Amino acid sequence: MATEKTGLVPDVFERAAFVRTMAIELVDYGDGWCETSQRVLPGHRQQHGFAHAGVVMTIADHTCGGAATSVVRNDQDVITVENKTSFLRPAAGDVLHARATVLRAGKSLIFVEAEVTVERGDERVLAAKTSSTLAVIPRAR
Amino acid sequence: MATEKTGLVPDVFERAAFVRTMAIELVDYGDGWCETSQRVLPGHRQQHGFAHAGVVMTIADHTCGGAATSVVRNDQDVITVENKTSFLRPAAGDVLHARATVLRAGKSLIFVEAEVTVERGDERVLAAKTSSTLAVIPRAR
Amino acid sequence: MATEKTGLVPDVFERAAFVRTMAIELVDYGDGWCETSQRVLPGHRQQHGFAHAGVVMTIADHTCGGAATSVVRNDQDVITVENKTSFLRPAAGDVLHARATVLRAGKSLIFVEAEVTVERGDERVLAAKTSSTLAVIPRAR
Amino acid sequence: MATEKTGLVPDVFERAAFVRTMAIELVDYGDGWCETSQRVLPGHRQQHGFAHAGVVMTIADHTCGGAATSVVRNDQDVITVENKTSFLRPAAGDVLHARATVLRAGKSLIFVEAEVTVERGDERVLAAKTSSTLAVIPRAR
Repeated sequence: MATEKTGLVPDVFERAAFVRTMAIELVDYGDGWCETSQRVLPGHRQQHGFAHAGVVMTIADHTCGGAATSVVRNDQDVITVENKTSFLRPAAGDVLHARATVLRAGKSLIFVEAEVTVERGDERVLAAKTSSTLAVIPRAR
Repeated sequence: MATEKTGLVPDVFERAAFVRTMAIELVDYGDGWCETSQRVLPGHRQQHGFAHAGVVMTIADHTCGGAATSVVRNDQDVITVENKTSFLRPAAGDVLHARATVLRAGKSLIFVEAEVTVERGDERVLAAKTSSTLAVIPRAR
Repeated sequence: MATEKTGLVPDVFERAAFVRTMAIELVDYGDGWCETSQRVLPGHRQQHGFAHAGVVMTIADHTCGGAATSVVRNDQDVITVENKTSFLRPAAGDVLHARATVLRAGKSLIFVEAEVTVERGDERVLAAKTSSTLAVIPRAR
Repeated sequence: MATEKTGLVPDVFERAAFVRTMAIELVDYGDGWCETSQRVLPGHRQQHGFAHAGVVMTIADHTCGGAATSVVRNDQDVITVENKTSFLRPAAGDVLHARATVLRAGKSLIFVEAEVTVERGDERVLAAKTSSTLAVIPRAR
């Protein structure tokens, strides 16, 4: 059930145009975590036929933003300070899933990590792992 | 002038569907470097109206790929191992420019960094800095 | 019980002079993981009295090296390609513990992550999280 | 010549015990930059005879701290949020040099990068490149 805090999470997905452009869907969220998924379309692939690194980093980053948003006050917002993503395996498949978890929520900085998996048949294979820092900022009216 | 090696660079841009989706343009390149640019469209923005972190990381990553491609043999290709991007300022503006430079080209790994600037009036403001490792792989036929 | 592979792990600790200088101890290890600990001495601290970031990164890096070594053949060795460490909390305490886990072991690259905790009274507090890439190299005779 | 701000830089080196333990020397500094050097002693090496990654990350981190300190007010201090270091070449040699440069100094976060070179005969070879974020904190009395 959404709390005062976690109630801000859907908003972060609805108001971000690029997230709608990429058709990233908010799957579930709670206090300190967020899950998303996305169809990998032909226009999302790179020269080897896999999801482009930029596609993988986009879903990872925004899911980290969702998780960080779930732990701030409702007059606060978050913005990405830095994102490091390791590409463990080619994102070969048609659906990406991301799950982000808050490692540490400070007053001004939130440390989050995320896993991006790709559906291959019945299983989900770990394609990428992200480590990210976000800053807490005042929420614009 | 394109050498045998640098002749592969345009190919990396033409064959990557997501780069065409994002309308990232190859501006110039040489031995160990690559420059690109991109219009920031309404559908590329996040909730604060700036270019989404995923958009910035996509142009940074692909420009790093272009620079790395310029230093491999023509039977070789490159793939991103990891990408760390620091967001120095909001990417507030309508045009992004990226310039990537090879720091070190080994036999199997290439270290590249990139700067992403955003046009604000007559100047270009540094919005992000990327540090990335790419692996050299055999080129698929 | 040590296998052919994991039998190389103690060697990585015995032959590294800086690890002995820092008095980092190998606590335990297995297939794909490694645990270490270290007393934080007065000479290891920074200006605020906490373990220096360099001390934290050193134990994190070497423990990642131990975990990566546990998954290579006995004619192979590993070397750090890159290390990213996030400092979640000040390393305020007298004993550091590190645990590294292999996320993905490829033929030429191994992705590892590590947690560094610090003893505070009876508990261990998460002080830092590391994401690292290591390269597999031939073992020198 | 030291300004009010840059006057804090030597203090960061004198008060950090681990920096003295490692015999890292402050060479020079100015508004937004810092240079250091260090002899690589036998006790600083890893199993292949090179300076340990932890040694390289320590001088890189502290030099980034020096550069960041040069741009804060004299009632402020800095602390490392995250450090990513890429190891471009083995640090094979007897003297390390580091130079850190501030990329962007915000009110609460400072982005810095550093190069670590190693002396080989008459030249200095680039061994590592660091990208780091530091937070501005109040200076303790």
